[in-house]
Amino acid sequence: MNRDRLVVIGGDAAGLSAAAQARRLRPAENLEIVVLEQGPEISYSACGIPYWIGGLVSDRDRLLARTPADFAAQDVTVRTDTRAEGIDLAAGEVVAAGGERLGYDNLLVATGGKPFRPPVPGLDADGVYGVHRLADGADIRAAIAAGAKRAVVLGGGYIGLEMAEVLHTRGLEVTVVLADPLPMAQLDDDMGERVCKGMCDMGLDVQTDQPVREIEVGTDGAVTAVRTDAGSYPCDIVVLGLGMGPDVTLAREAGLQLGATGAIDVRHTQRSRSHPEVFAAGDCSQTFHRLTGEAVHVALGTHANKQGRIAGSVIGGRPARFAGVLGTAMTKVGDLEVARTGLCTTQAEDGGFDFRTELIEATTRAGYYPGAAPIAVKLITERGSGLLLGAQVVGGPGSGKRIDVFATAIWAGMTAEMLAGSDLSYAPPFSPTYDPVVVAARVASRIEQG
Amino acid sequence: MNRDRLVVIGGDAAGLSAAAQARRLRPAENLEIVVLEQGPEISYSACGIPYWIGGLVSDRDRLLARTPADFAAQDVTVRTDTRAEGIDLAAGEVVAAGGERLGYDNLLVATGGKPFRPPVPGLDADGVYGVHRLADGADIRAAIAAGAKRAVVLGGGYIGLEMAEVLHTRGLEVTVVLADPLPMAQLDDDMGERVCKGMCDMGLDVQTDQPVREIEVGTDGAVTAVRTDAGSYPCDIVVLGLGMGPDVTLAREAGLQLGATGAIDVRHTQRSRSHPEVFAAGDCSQTFHRLTGEAVHVALGTHANKQGRIAGSVIGGRPARFAGVLGTAMTKVGDLEVARTGLCTTQAEDGGFDFRTELIEATTRAGYYPGAAPIAVKLITERGSGLLLGAQVVGGPGSGKRIDVFATAIWAGMTAEMLAGSDLSYAPPFSPTYDPVVVAARVASRIEQG
Repeated sequence: MNRDRLVVIGGDAAGLSAAAQARRLRPAENLEIVVLEQGPEISYSACGIPYWIGGLVSDRDRLLARTPADFAAQDVTVRTDTRAEGIDLAAGEVVAAGGERLGYDNLLVATGGKPFRPPVPGLDADGVYGVHRLADGADIRAAIAAGAKRAVVLGGGYIGLEMAEVLHTRGLEVTVVLADPLPMAQLDDDMGERVCKGMCDMGLDVQTDQPVREIEVGTDGAVTAVRTDAGSYPCDIVVLGLGMGPDVTLAREAGLQLGATGAIDVRHTQRSRSHPEVFAAGDCSQTFHRLTGEAVHVALGTHANKQGRIAGSVIGGRPARFAGVLGTAMTKVGDLEVARTGLCTTQAEDGGFDFRTELIEATTRAGYYPGAAPIAVKLITERGSGLLLGAQVVGGPGSGKRIDVFATAIWAGMTAEMLAGSDLSYAPPFSPTYDPVVVAARVASRIEQG
Repeated sequence: MNRDRLVVIGGDAAGLSAAAQARRLRPAENLEIVVLEQGPEISYSACGIPYWIGGLVSDRDRLLARTPADFAAQDVTVRTDTRAEGIDLAAGEVVAAGGERLGYDNLLVATGGKPFRPPVPGLDADGVYGVHRLADGADIRAAIAAGAKRAVVLGGGYIGLEMAEVLHTRGLEVTVVLADPLPMAQLDDDMGERVCKGMCDMGLDVQTDQPVREIEVGTDGAVTAVRTDAGSYPCDIVVLGLGMGPDVTLAREAGLQLGATGAIDVRHTQRSRSHPEVFAAGDCSQTFHRLTGEAVHVALGTHANKQGRIAGSVIGGRPARFAGVLGTAMTKVGDLEVARTGLCTTQAEDGGFDFRTELIEATTRAGYYPGAAPIAVKLITERGSGLLLGAQVVGGPGSGKRIDVFATAIWAGMTAEMLAGSDLSYAPPFSPTYDPVVVAARVASRIEQG
């Protein structure tokens, strides 16, 4: 009996989750699995790179979750330093570097994402770094070791905030340059302002409303400053924290259908909409918002893992469907925790929802308990039904993970009133008698009641 | 026009929440509100008393949320040091100390709870304390200041654990004596064992399976030791951490119907089942479990606040119903956080459920991030439907509040599979890529799938 072959392009969250799940469901005599990874390592935590740069993670190898040998033990062949140069969809073959052609019965494209790069001069200068590959982390660490004193971080999303924090921790003077009026564009302005204030309070220089115009470069080819319409910010290094787009070069060239977001268009089974024998998962693939049904692109390891697992299940013969995203996200800058889920105000407007917003302020612990810190919670609920549509949290230690309660409530289709009546935990070291989550839900439901 | 009068017996969470809510809905010219409180203070956080004893809360007054003057400003009369001696249900009058009779149109009984007292000799000796009233806290603080060196804590529930922790923090040698084989009887054994180990690791002496037989008393009338069948534990103070029962003396004597739990029997509107013009709320009242529908008694400030608010709404003319409890609870002992919600194994058995259990171990943060600590999560799901029935969490800092996600999911009627697909937050300082909540849900749903 001929066995099938699954080829996976990309040896990180999505690709390896798929490989592992397919192997669980189909033994090696039934399915050969080959993973091609262009880089020297697999299964690394890109999200951990800022913390490695910051010195919180001492050893780079701690960011590596699994090795090719781990997969070999499960009869999954992982070939590192092996770049896929092309996909021949008609022939059902991947063309690897050197011209080797590798036939497949199923193909998973898990080529990941790539950092957004602003279209400005100087971006290729020495000292301009992404935060995407382990090599980026090594380069930034080397630049700091070599004496870099001033950094400009471009962008105020999650990566931008994390990089600003860790570079500040390492003793650099950090300027964060934003094209937007506030950091964390996925938050409403009144919440973004709290983040901005927190960044300034910890000593970061935040320059808003300033699209970058040029990376100024010295005669030695190294960055000297970042220029905007408002000024020029001298620096030794520039970090790109502008977010991640899908890396779809291979897919586009092969003729796989891309979606409205520019990422690979897939069904809920992670099957390519144009080529059902091909799957895509993770940062290179398009997904959908659970509340709006609209196509979205969200580059996040959690989704990559889950989507890879879905693809692996389907390839393994067990039906499975990805259930969508709420855009849940979380980060911290200094002691300030920031999280959001569901729709923010502009998304609710764009989605055509009739909605209300409510913002409450409380404390993370009983007011009398040491370490009680301010927390602000903003809720967006549907007018009339009271359904929860979105939540945003900004506050001191212990604030951020509260977003998971809202994410769960939205996932389940709960109203604010239902959540307000729910039985959440209480102990003075962990919350006031009414948890801020419940206070927000109660205020929102009271307003709904009129 | 005659205005109605609401009399409230008890000036703490339930009574004051009711008074405040009734006042919001009916102005003073329409409803007179009189609150009778037997003690000198109102609105104090009993849950905070351990932390005041432990020195984490420096000032007793920080435990007082509101004063009689706050209520006077809202036209609510609060009479402290005023004991209700009886209720004349036929006449519709409360008999206050000194024989004063106070007529009511509506009465709210919010007489609270009282610490369980084991039926053993010596319990009235000097040096035996509850942790119920502010005066208890003052007495224990005074005993420590006077040189108490050794403490026995009776009971290993929330109060027992908290008291053991704070007395240990204050430098006392602490022995915890349990009638049960493990602390935290509301947990399954495999989770209770983790709590027990955590207690021992922090230096507490935990004596299990030993019902107390006698409080040994010296010739000066002060406690000298606690005796069980296994031994005698010398001590300077004894703290009762055996839980709280309902304080229903007034209600019973008046002839208000009590329920199967011994607490006042109320409908979901908090109305007395026998006397509809009378309401009861908080620790003196019976409530119901949302999953089983069975009558339960749970003494907890969160429920007291909500039930008081429900009673106040109904009295104020706005329909409202209490939605039940899941038995969500949380505490910590040292760095170990302990939380539970829904049904544990014995409760699921008693309730006649066909269920499975699954226990997973993970870390609170990304494994490479500093401070990542072990966390164990146990789930109980209904066989066949996969519905979530209960969850237990024991782990390091950041573990406990994760119970709220399960409480919300159970409240909403989610299955483990649905929760496994949900979009929870991820950032390395706060969780692994798959949050332990999701890992547990996924394992439970995988088992359900067979």
